[in-house]
Formats: sequence, structure tokens, C-alpha cells
Amino acid sequence: MIGKEHIDALTKILGDKGVVARAEDMRAYETGARYDEGRAAAVLRPGTTAEVSAAVAYCVRNDLALIPQSGNTGVVSGSTPDNTGTEIVLSLDRLTRQLELDRNNRSVRVDAGFRLSDLNRRLEEHDLFFPIDLGSDPRLGGMIATNTGGSRFLKYGGVRRNTLGLKVVLADENGTVLDLDCDLRKNNTGIDWKQIFIGTTGAFGIVTECVLNLERVPKQTATAFLVPASGADVLHLLNAMEERLGAYLSAFEGMSKNAIAATLAHVPSLKNPFQGGNVPDYVILAEISRTWAPREGEQSLDAVLESVLAEIWESEEAPLADAFVGPPHEIWALRHALPEGVKHLGKLIAFDLSFRRGDIMAFCDHMKTEMPEKFPGVTVCDFGHIGDGGVHFNLVVAKDSPLLAEASFEQRLREWVFAVAVEQYGGSFSAEHAIGRRNQAFYDFYTPEKLKEMARGLKTLTSPGKLGSVRFG
Amino acid sequence: MIGKEHIDALTKILGDKGVVARAEDMRAYETGARYDEGRAAAVLRPGTTAEVSAAVAYCVRNDLALIPQSGNTGVVSGSTPDNTGTEIVLSLDRLTRQLELDRNNRSVRVDAGFRLSDLNRRLEEHDLFFPIDLGSDPRLGGMIATNTGGSRFLKYGGVRRNTLGLKVVLADENGTVLDLDCDLRKNNTGIDWKQIFIGTTGAFGIVTECVLNLERVPKQTATAFLVPASGADVLHLLNAMEERLGAYLSAFEGMSKNAIAATLAHVPSLKNPFQGGNVPDYVILAEISRTWAPREGEQSLDAVLESVLAEIWESEEAPLADAFVGPPHEIWALRHALPEGVKHLGKLIAFDLSFRRGDIMAFCDHMKTEMPEKFPGVTVCDFGHIGDGGVHFNLVVAKDSPLLAEASFEQRLREWVFAVAVEQYGGSFSAEHAIGRRNQAFYDFYTPEKLKEMARGLKTLTSPGKLGSVRFG
Repeated sequence: MIGKEHIDALTKILGDKGVVARAEDMRAYETGARYDEGRAAAVLRPGTTAEVSAAVAYCVRNDLALIPQSGNTGVVSGSTPDNTGTEIVLSLDRLTRQLELDRNNRSVRVDAGFRLSDLNRRLEEHDLFFPIDLGSDPRLGGMIATNTGGSRFLKYGGVRRNTLGLKVVLADENGTVLDLDCDLRKNNTGIDWKQIFIGTTGAFGIVTECVLNLERVPKQTATAFLVPASGADVLHLLNAMEERLGAYLSAFEGMSKNAIAATLAHVPSLKNPFQGGNVPDYVILAEISRTWAPREGEQSLDAVLESVLAEIWESEEAPLADAFVGPPHEIWALRHALPEGVKHLGKLIAFDLSFRRGDIMAFCDHMKTEMPEKFPGVTVCDFGHIGDGGVHFNLVVAKDSPLLAEASFEQRLREWVFAVAVEQYGGSFSAEHAIGRRNQAFYDFYTPEKLKEMARGLKTLTSPGKLGSVRFG
Repeated sequence: MIGKEHIDALTKILGDKGVVARAEDMRAYETGARYDEGRAAAVLRPGTTAEVSAAVAYCVRNDLALIPQSGNTGVVSGSTPDNTGTEIVLSLDRLTRQLELDRNNRSVRVDAGFRLSDLNRRLEEHDLFFPIDLGSDPRLGGMIATNTGGSRFLKYGGVRRNTLGLKVVLADENGTVLDLDCDLRKNNTGIDWKQIFIGTTGAFGIVTECVLNLERVPKQTATAFLVPASGADVLHLLNAMEERLGAYLSAFEGMSKNAIAATLAHVPSLKNPFQGGNVPDYVILAEISRTWAPREGEQSLDAVLESVLAEIWESEEAPLADAFVGPPHEIWALRHALPEGVKHLGKLIAFDLSFRRGDIMAFCDHMKTEMPEKFPGVTVCDFGHIGDGGVHFNLVVAKDSPLLAEASFEQRLREWVFAVAVEQYGGSFSAEHAIGRRNQAFYDFYTPEKLKEMARGLKTLTSPGKLGSVRFG
């Protein structure tokens, strides 16, 4: 806990609604989406950028540690306090006043506390959306702080590409507000400072407002399950689809047999879509979409997809073993159920990796080959975004495995996976979850000394106060 | 000039081919694409990153000033030395050894000295290209240093979006090489340091190698001239086209009557495409494209464009006065001739501005209304990238105008244009040309003190030596 005088002073700045100090009211802010149970000194809930600024200035002057928290849906322990009870959570959940749409510019200026789903609901009647497709429903500030990607990155890119501007409060003695809230697509008048606040878990400043690029909502969508003839054919299939569909292609997701089988077994509402109920070794979900309503004389999108698949099917060395077009909600239902499905197999140890596109399958094969010897009883249940190189590399340990009794097992496993992914395959140990307490040690290990030195310098330049769960540098 | 001992030492590092010191051989490196005539102390032409590093380290230790130069095609005096004869040009023109294509990843790892046209020629046989469409033919390092955009930004984005990784030499006493040469699309493992070298004219480090995203070459293209019913209808037309064409739309360029008329008058090879030869007040060039070859049973792209235009034509309050689909090379010929065409009218004073899309036409109208009173005899010959908010706002002063005799005329004009663009319309004074000596004063004037302080700090953190033509901070 912190002294009562601080609670009183912060209440004076933020009002009664702006400060939470009772243990039972703080619980939700102390508990992370997947793992964490921390203890907060207090929770601040400012309602405006000016209030964020005043609260931050007070905390910096009094050397109080702040953890910015947005939707608190992250999985790397980036947004919760540690167990010391000395860190103050600064929540964005009341920063939900302003939402200013500019239809002509296809952009929106919006407070960072809005949830993704709320933003998109407000944009629906204008046929626009913020094109980041995620399983969870974060608030915008956290999406920026983690630079989320998602399932349609292949077509729309991630948060970085779709952020035009930011308003940021720095953790200095004045709570300086940086107006980087530009709403232009082309602007080359110096350093693009907003970039350093994207994907850095709030350590360099707290995003309170953002200007986002919007896209038009697709009016037609067609989806299919594709069964590649072999693991290597996943890539041939991706190339064949990109060649023939270009910007139509909006998702190209991969799902391993283990992940599918676990999900079908544990989510009874899902029907098994495969011939004879036999789950193939690997399945691709492909989606194509376009923004206009069906037009007379134009092939339906299902027909386009079918004819492209027929063309690929008939090509020499066809990379396809099977394929069937189906209604998007049915096809996606299986994909969306995977994160939940794999959990039922045992203890889940999740990795969020990325690779050059050509290396994903090779890496997964490599791991599936070596796993039985290195970590017997651990099942690889991978799925991911083949089109952009991302893979949710999930490992499941049977609940009765002796490995779980070994104190250093998880650490040993993580180190091995990262060593193979990063050192042998040139991959990334965090594709789209950013850095948090949970992968801090790997940031420390894999980041060159010079870049850590530069990060320390940048921290001093921007937010010298105690801000964020991550030590950069 | 610098002392002979420095020339000798640098020759020892770079070899005879790596150092140019004779006045006549330096001329091309001292002369800019549009305005500049500087004087170099010497020209360095390293052939590898290691040579860049060694040369930079020597110069920093000896307090010698370096100007990085790439294709030297920029128009803001970013890549040429000043008139003191004390600055050394470091040219990238021999950094053209490595070009490593990764087809599966749709990326290329390439030395920064390659010209855009050379890169795309090498990629042609693979049906891939680096999708930045420019009138000039810069080298890649300079494209990164200026974050170029171009005519198809609407579809592909600019350099920032298409840069996956960089290798950078810092101007410190060791000529530190930063390996930011990641080839992943998703990678969130800390600060994305490459961003600070994009669009900052080489002041924070010299880019020697880059990893770039590639796109598939369009196999079908259809183009049209559209005549909007009014100035305000330019925007309605853009919205109508985006709604109906989505990701097909690859260019939406605007051309003013003045710019077209000047070009038709002075480029005799162009035929006048307009009814009765009457140039409309404003004309849009729209392009749609797709990456696959024509397929049986599929509407041709010309037919798609025609049917969409017919639909818009028949809509209520149709924003179209006229429209005609024509062969891409004919349609683009007029657009490509504009930069040359407008020069013939008199003395050209060029601005590279950007706005929210909804404000471009309002700004241009505003200026056309006020110009005759403020600067009689100055003609507005604007054209630009309506789809992304960029406008090449060209002013032409008749050769016999008394304004040209006024010493402060150009300065006065620039200050007024920027004041209206930036302060009244919230626009940018540099859309895609970045900062150079030529617009340094406007960077100084429009950049908030806090951001300049941060820029100074970042300069110390990265390249404390004398590097680049721009003073950031």
C-alpha cells in the first residue's frame, strides 16, 4: 500500500470516481487475463488526458510506480501489478468520451479507453471498421501498446500500419502531453515519434487518444478449408492463392491436426467437417472478401473461390489433397474454437512466434520430431497465421505428466523453444503479444547491448518516472 | 577542402575507387536534382557496410562532417553538401552487391545503393515488385531516408509500411553497425528502432542494407479519366469508387485545369483527350488493377470499371460530369507529363503538402481565391494523390512578373502557403519529400520545443557525430 496522503492527493486530482483503493474493488485490475495475480497499491481511473497528465505528474514527483492498464486482455503480464503491493494501476477504462469519425478521411479520432468491439459497433452504420481481427476484445490503448496483429494481418496489416496519430502522456514531473495526434496519411516532417509508443507496453508513455485508419466492411466473404497434399505444400498453396487472388485474400490460417482434434473432442457444438471424420495432418482456412454487394453479371465470390481452387487442383504437382468451400460462420467456428479447445488437453504452455513464411512448417516439423525425446508427453498443438508468418505455437502437457513436478520444467522448455525459433530459424519470440513481465528475461537475453543502451537513453528522454511493467534497456 | 592526411587515411580505408577528391569528378555529387550547387570536401564511395562503418568511424573521430547521399534525386536539399567545402559526401552508389530474394516470404534483402528501377527489373521474372511508384528513380537508401510515397500509396502504402528491416551505420566513434535487418512481418520484441531512420534524411544513421516487402505485379490494369461534376464531388467520387472497388482501386490522382492545360500546351506528343479539346476544371485519373491474368467467364477489368462508372453515373446526385475508360499508357502519359509540363509556364515554386482527404479541394480553392490579391500573377497548377491526401501544390510565376525581382518574395510566399496549409487546415508541409536544408526553417518553426529536445537527445544516443544535412532538434 501507499500512504493515505497519496490516496487523498490523487482523489483531489481525479475525484472519487477516479481512485479505487478498496481491496475488493481492485481485484479485477490486479488479475490478468491468463496468468497473473498481483497486488495494487491503488487503481487510478482518470477520465480525460488532462487528468492522466495531472495524476502521472503527481506520481512521478512522489516516486510512485505506475502500471498502465487498458483492457487487461494481454497474455504476457504487461498490464498487471507485481506482488509487492507498491505499484499503482492507471486504468484507461474511463477514457471513453470522444469518438469523432471522419468519413471522408476514413479515420476516427477516439479515446484510448474504447473497446475494439465498441468502436466497431459505432462504425457499423457507416460501413467502416478498424481492421484488426482478434480473439479477445481489448481497449485501444492496449492494442497500441502491444501492436496487435490478428487473423487478417495479411490483408490489412496490424496496429502500427493502421495508426495515424497518438496523444501520449509522458511520465515526467509535468506529465507532459505529446500531441502526435496527426490525422494525415502522408506526413514526413521529422521523426515519427508515435512509433516508439507502439508495441512498447506503455513504458515510454501512456496513450490516451488515437487517430486510426479505417477500412470498408466487406460485403461478400467466401471461405474454404484446404487440405495441403504435404506439409511443404502449405507454402505452395499460399503462393498459388496469392497469385490468383491478390488483394481478395483476407486470411490464410493454418491449423494442425492435434489442435483440431483436441478442439473437436472438447467443443461438442462443432461438427466435424472432414471426410469420414478423419482429421488431416494440417488444414488451411482461406478467406477471400470484397467490399461491394453482389453485382449483376458478376461471379459470386463462392464461385470465384471454387474456380480458383479448381485451377490449383488441376495444376501440375497440385499442392491440394482436398478442399471444400463452406459458409464463413461454419468455417471460422472451428478456427475460433482452437484457443479454447487446446486447453482441455492438459496444461497449456503458449508461445507466440513468427518466422519467414517459408520457415513456419519447417520449424513446427522440427519441434514435432524432437519433442518426444526432449520433453516426452508434451503435445504440439500449433495453429497460426501462415500468410504473415505468425504461429501460435501451443504446447500441451498431459495433466499426469511427471514433467509438471519438475520445478524448472517450464523455464527449460521455453528456453529450448526460443533457442530453436530465434537462433536456428531467425524467428521472433513475440510476434504480436509484445513484451511483458512474462517474457522480460528473453528480451534481456536476445536484445543486443547497444539497443538496450539506446532504450535506456530513450526512457530517460521520454518517461524518466517509474512507468510500466517492463524494464527496457 | 580537408587536409591531404585525411584523404590519404580514407583512401587507405576505402581504396582508390572509394575516394573521389578531384573537383571535376565530384561535380555530380555536389549538384542536386532540382536546385542545389554545393561544394564537397571529398566524396566517399564505400562498397560494403564494413567500409561505411570504418569510414564513418574515421570521420567522427576527426570531427569531419558527413552528408549521406543516395540517388540524389530529392528536391529538399537533403543529399548535397553546403557551400563551405568542408562537408564530405558519403555516397551509397557502390553499395550494390547483395540482392537476395525470398520468394516465399515475398521479401528481398538488398544493399541500399540499388536503384528502384534496377531492383524491380531483377524482380520482374518472379512477378514481384517493390510497390512504390515514383516519377524519379532514387536509390533505396534515399527512399528510406525520405519515406517516399508516390502514386499508388492508396493501395500499397509508402516506404515505412513496406520496410521489414534495416542495417544502419551510426555516426559514433566506432561506426557502430545496428542489425535491425529483420525479415519478419510480425515482430514485437521491443522498440522498433528502424522507424527512427525512416524519413529522417540520414541524420540518425546511414542505411546500408534493407529488407523490403514485395507485392505481386498486377497482370490486369484499367484506367479512366473522370470529370467530377464540381470540386466537392471529387470527394464523393472517391467515396463512391472505394465503396464499389475496394482493394482493386490502385490510384486516384487529381489534376487541375491549369496543370493539364500547361502540359498539353508544352508537350506536343500528348493528345488532348477531352471533348472538343476543352480541359475541365478538374480531372481524376482512376486506376484499378488485379494480380491475375484474365480468366474465362470473368468480366474484363475494363468492363468492371465501365459498369462501376455507369452505376455511379446513374446514382442520385451523380458526382460525375464525364468519364471515359482508356488504355493505361495513354491515360498515365498525361499524369506523368505534369511535373515537366508545369515548368514551362514560368518559374516553378513547388510544395509537397498533405491534408485530410476531405480538405484537399477546399485548401486548393481557398488558395486559388486568395492568390490574385496576395500574389498577383502567380498561377496555381496543383495535382496530386487525392486518395491519400497528398497534393503537389505547384505555383508558377510568369517569367516577367515583378514579384521575381523582390528579394523576399519566395520566402513570403512559402510562409503564407505553409501558414494556411498547416495552421488553418491542419495539413503537413512535407507529405513525402521529408526534411532537407530547404525546409529546415519550417521544421524549426512548426516542431514543438519538447519534440526538438527529444530529437536532440536521440541524436546524441545514436549518431553524435556530424551527420546529415538537417539539424534535428
